[in-house]
This record gives sequence, structure tokens and C-alpha cells, in this order.
Amino acid sequence: MTFGNGAGEHMSVHTAIRSRRDVRAEFDGTCIDDAMLHRILDAAHHAPSVGNTQPWDFVVVQSPDTLAAFAKHVADERVAFADSLPADRRATFDPIRIEGIESSRTGVVVTYDPERGGTHILGRATVDDTGLFSAVLAIQNLWLAAVSERIGVGWVSFYQEQFLTELLDIPSPVRPIAWLCVGPVTEFQEVPDLERFGWRNRRPLSDAVHHERFRQQ
Amino acid sequence: MTFGNGAGEHMSVHTAIRSRRDVRAEFDGTCIDDAMLHRILDAAHHAPSVGNTQPWDFVVVQSPDTLAAFAKHVADERVAFADSLPADRRATFDPIRIEGIESSRTGVVVTYDPERGGTHILGRATVDDTGLFSAVLAIQNLWLAAVSERIGVGWVSFYQEQFLTELLDIPSPVRPIAWLCVGPVTEFQEVPDLERFGWRNRRPLSDAVHHERFRQQ
Repeated sequence: MTFGNGAGEHMSVHTAIRSRRDVRAEFDGTCIDDAMLHRILDAAHHAPSVGNTQPWDFVVVQSPDTLAAFAKHVADERVAFADSLPADRRATFDPIRIEGIESSRTGVVVTYDPERGGTHILGRATVDDTGLFSAVLAIQNLWLAAVSERIGVGWVSFYQEQFLTELLDIPSPVRPIAWLCVGPVTEFQEVPDLERFGWRNRRPLSDAVHHERFRQQ
Repeated sequence: MTFGNGAGEHMSVHTAIRSRRDVRAEFDGTCIDDAMLHRILDAAHHAPSVGNTQPWDFVVVQSPDTLAAFAKHVADERVAFADSLPADRRATFDPIRIEGIESSRTGVVVTYDPERGGTHILGRATVDDTGLFSAVLAIQNLWLAAVSERIGVGWVSFYQEQFLTELLDIPSPVRPIAWLCVGPVTEFQEVPDLERFGWRNRRPLSDAVHHERFRQQ
């Protein structure tokens, strides 16, 4: 997908939501410039958070050695997943690319610190996961801000948390929750990869919307 | 905050991210119209999801009886939290409004179904929480789309999950993860409530950004 008017600072929310893709193959091999990266991280940092705790951090990884080490780990985990699949699903999975760790040139690892904000966190007393949720909200801010600047983002989740924790020297109890490949792209695909490759199609919105109760009478 | 040019379909991502507030007191008492609500839910439904599972559902609650029952429960949980606070924090907390359940006229309860997508979920084999994270990404899409239409959203988390599960007849293993108050507003505050009331200020972005490793050498 190419953008006409409305890109950059002026791309609308609705356009960004519909243009957004989970990018793997389309990184152009150049590295995002620092000012652009700062703008995107600043958008992430404006996310809502329970009790205004802002429990996220962002580790920017650009060292080729670290990118290569993570890519190797992810490749191993990809094999383990492929080996777990029945034959028909494996044949569908095999051509699907799952990461652009090195081609994006930049990883942004988002972490969650459950201790940020101390013991009395307004809004987390009853649902502890709202802390974790806050860090995820920051990711979607980052993603949409990136799209609006024509920067691609691809979320890689084929990793063991312990490996990533050690790779980036993340102290307990801080938890890495996402590795985001972030970089300039040649284009955004019109159709999400998992649909294009026949892995899984979208469900209609009408199936997801319920009225008054989850189970209809 | 009032909006000049750039509202509605054309509000930019950056403007929406910066204008977004967690709304409690500013709902104007009118009910969102169905077409607008549909547009906002459609934006949520365009979120990324692990393995394209789209594990979210949206329960739209507008029955005054249900809104009142939930508001009563939240009021009780508010008291429990207030009672847990030391005196100085309690004095800061007391004037802070935590919900607009009845004044918004509409609750959108977002749920997560861990079984959506079956047993072989592409991308969830190593980090099971990526399913839950997907439903949270949908919330931020909803929130920003709403802001771009000048619709307020307030996330209420002062509830026991079991209460909400029973109130809306949500079948196991589906889990409610958020009650969102959604409705037209008189204005968006310039400064987040928790800053205005002195509960907790923002941290600078520079504190959140790390390079190459979380712990600097």
C-alpha cells in the first residue's frame, strides 16, 4: 500500500489503523533515523497507564551482534514450532516469514516493571494485570505512530523470555513483553501475511459484538 | 481541549495520541449513536493479533439496570481501596473520580478467549500472554478511534473479575479484561486527571529509553 495525502504527521487514525501491517519482509535495509525513532517512542510514552504508573521501558537494540544472536534464537524456535505442527499446517506455515530482526536494523524491546508506582496503585488493586496491559497499550501507540510516518513494525514472539532477559540484561522483576522490529519499508502489504498465505482469515465484526450479555438469551 | 481542524475521520494519529484522556467526569449524558459505535468497534477489530486469532469480543452494555449494578459494585471496590491507603494518599485519592459508568450511557466490555484459534497458534507457542496482549491492542485502537471522533473513553478497573463475569454471563474460559465507558463528552481535559489531582506525575521519556541493554554498563 502506498500513501497519498495524509501521511506523516497528518495521517488520520482511521487510515493508520487500516494500513497497519505486521511487517516481516518489507524492511528496506536502511536504519530509522534517531529523530524519527524518538518521535515514535514519545508516542508510545503517551499511552494510558493504570494509576499513571507508566510501567514500560524501551530498549533500543541496533548492535549487529545482538540482532544476529536474537535472530538465531528465533530461527531455532521457529523450527520447534514447525515440528509441532500436523503436516497440512506445516506446509502452510513453511513459506511464512516470521521476523525482520536484522533487515529492520532496529529492535525496540518493550518491558514491563510490576514494581513501578510502589504498593498502592490506583486501579490495579482488583485486576493486577492492568499493569501489564498498560505496557501493551504503549505498543499500539508506537505501532500506529510508526505507520503514520511510513515506518514498519513487526512484533516477533518466537522467543523464550529467559533468553531475551539474559541477552539484554533485564533485571528481575522487569519482564520483556515484546520485540518490535522497527524500520523503513518499501511498502505495506494490502492484505495481512497470515491471510495471504492461507494461515487464518479474519472473522466478521458481527461475530465479535454482543449486546447486554455475552451469551445471548 | 477543543478540536479545530483535524477532528473526525481526519484527526491525525499524533493529535489523537496527545488528546486522548481517560474520561470520567466529562461525559455529557447523551448516548453514542449506533453508527458511531460501530465505526469505533470496527477500528478495534482491525487490531493486530497473534496468529491472526482476533481473540477479543465486545459486549455492549446499555441497560440502565446493568450499568447501575456495575456502578454499585465499583463504588464498593473504591471504598475498599480507599481504606487500604495511608492517610496522606487517601486525602489525595478522595476527590478523584474513577468512573463514568452511568453518565457515559454505554459500557464496552472487552473479553479475551484463550481458545480462539485452536491448539496451534502461530506466535503463541513460546509466549502464551501474546493472546491476552492482542485483546489489549484492540482496546488502544478503539480508544484512539474514539478520540478522533470526539468520543470519550474511560477504562474502569475497580472490579472483581468474577463479579463482571457473572453480571454479563461470560462463559469460561473467556475472561473480561476491561470495562470501557464510551460516550460523547463536553471536552477533553488538557492534563490527565491523576496529574491534576496530584496523585502521580509523568516520568520523562529519557528515563524510559535504554540503549542496547536494559542495565547500562
